[in-house]
Amino acid sequence: MKLAAYLFNGCRSYGIKTENGIIDLGARLGKRYVDLKALLASNAQAEAAEYQHHLPDLTLSEVDFLPVIDNPGKIICVGMNYADKRLEFNEQNPAPTLFVRFADSQTGHLQPVLKPRYSAEFDYEGELAVIIGRTGVNIPREQALAHVAGYSCYMDGSARDWQHTWYTAGKNGRCTGAFGPWMTTCDEIPDPQKLTLVTRLNGQQVQQDSTCNMIYTVAALIEYISTFTSLSAGDVIITGSPGGVGKKRTPPLFMHPGDRIEVEIEHIGCLSNQIADAPLSVPEVVAA
Amino acid sequence: MKLAAYLFNGCRSYGIKTENGIIDLGARLGKRYVDLKALLASNAQAEAAEYQHHLPDLTLSEVDFLPVIDNPGKIICVGMNYADKRLEFNEQNPAPTLFVRFADSQTGHLQPVLKPRYSAEFDYEGELAVIIGRTGVNIPREQALAHVAGYSCYMDGSARDWQHTWYTAGKNGRCTGAFGPWMTTCDEIPDPQKLTLVTRLNGQQVQQDSTCNMIYTVAALIEYISTFTSLSAGDVIITGSPGGVGKKRTPPLFMHPGDRIEVEIEHIGCLSNQIADAPLSVPEVVAA
Repeated sequence: MKLAAYLFNGCRSYGIKTENGIIDLGARLGKRYVDLKALLASNAQAEAAEYQHHLPDLTLSEVDFLPVIDNPGKIICVGMNYADKRLEFNEQNPAPTLFVRFADSQTGHLQPVLKPRYSAEFDYEGELAVIIGRTGVNIPREQALAHVAGYSCYMDGSARDWQHTWYTAGKNGRCTGAFGPWMTTCDEIPDPQKLTLVTRLNGQQVQQDSTCNMIYTVAALIEYISTFTSLSAGDVIITGSPGGVGKKRTPPLFMHPGDRIEVEIEHIGCLSNQIADAPLSVPEVVAA
Repeated sequence: MKLAAYLFNGCRSYGIKTENGIIDLGARLGKRYVDLKALLASNAQAEAAEYQHHLPDLTLSEVDFLPVIDNPGKIICVGMNYADKRLEFNEQNPAPTLFVRFADSQTGHLQPVLKPRYSAEFDYEGELAVIIGRTGVNIPREQALAHVAGYSCYMDGSARDWQHTWYTAGKNGRCTGAFGPWMTTCDEIPDPQKLTLVTRLNGQQVQQDSTCNMIYTVAALIEYISTFTSLSAGDVIITGSPGGVGKKRTPPLFMHPGDRIEVEIEHIGCLSNQIADAPLSVPEVVAA
């Protein structure tokens, strides 16, 4: 089952994405589960699945996609988790390298990804996103995948000239992290280490790898992270990008307004976004 | 005015800390402003101040202190922001080095600080905490202090053996970051760069510096951070620790269960916590 979050007529909702459109769950279950995060927190995927053979209520073009989870409690990002990427950045640290995104750095499928005005090196990173379904701490590797609700694509847009030593500044520009197009529930992806991931910039393939080449598997990451912090329903782990990023090409290849960036992962779908300049003025209150 | 957050009879509340006790604001304003963050977001400090000459309702010993803000949208921590600390860690990166704490890594004044069981190097860092009052992005340095609601002390407990290259893992153990005892509103601290900060371990002074020795001032940090992300009411900036941390002493000096750690900053107060072992089992759902 594929679960999407979106605005319809300006209202926040969520539903099941099918071949022929979207079965709106917000209208049916929204009083009990205000959003996807609440649905996962209540372990109500089976209740949602009862509607999966209904006729679709909405076409894909009628909705404005939101980040799959637009209000995660924690967005934990893994750096340098593919051998090729480590080589590119000469990373020697053996432990998982973790940084954090804030929720307001995210955007949805088909929404503009905003190139920060302060950056001349806005780079792409295609990644597998893991959405946590079941709360836990000290989760053993062998039980880790039982805590996963599903998987999605992530385009971890990175201002390389603002990454400095630690990544917080370069990874938190508003609407720089695209998350979607939807999540595929874990029953349809029994092994997250057998997925092909492709990133395309303006139709040209720029990254291609298999998640079997992750240095820390999804299960190992959940074990490691849950040692020092709790993981709860709706938390997101972004598992790192393969090699091929623009910063390490000769000449470098960065993203500019008008460019189209796509991250496609098998059994999930193709996350597609156009780059736009961040507006000069921003709303006083930025939605979290 | 000093504003504190606490539990009274198990209920979350907040109030004005005076010489003789606490004037409970939760009972008076709680319907309009559920907590200190909501009070700041509504810019209602003047409304709170109308009660500051009332008789206190509670003694300090009657409440269980919470982190001054227990639910910040963003907790942004600055590393290596004093010259002595940079020397100790041989830090060369000129930009502010930022990492993130999650809300559930915090605890309040007089509550146990939990030494993670996975760490043999649990270290202290006494820091000035800045609490944001007014939302903004792209805040110029000259206007930055107008966005500050107040200041507090922070004990940024750090698992040195889990910091690795990036600090996320070493800085997010549950109840490792003490935040309090309360906040002093900014009208009483016109210049945050003129504060003496002292850290004591079991009564012995281990850190002592003036905030005038920060490499990036509070105003410069707000300018820098608000370039790449919005700052909102209740967000917290932890401005870095002076030199003298335990990891860089000969022999090293770490914190152990039973130890008392104190961070005192003039015009604010003395944050005091005893170290305890993190419990072997943790609640399934950890409060965020």
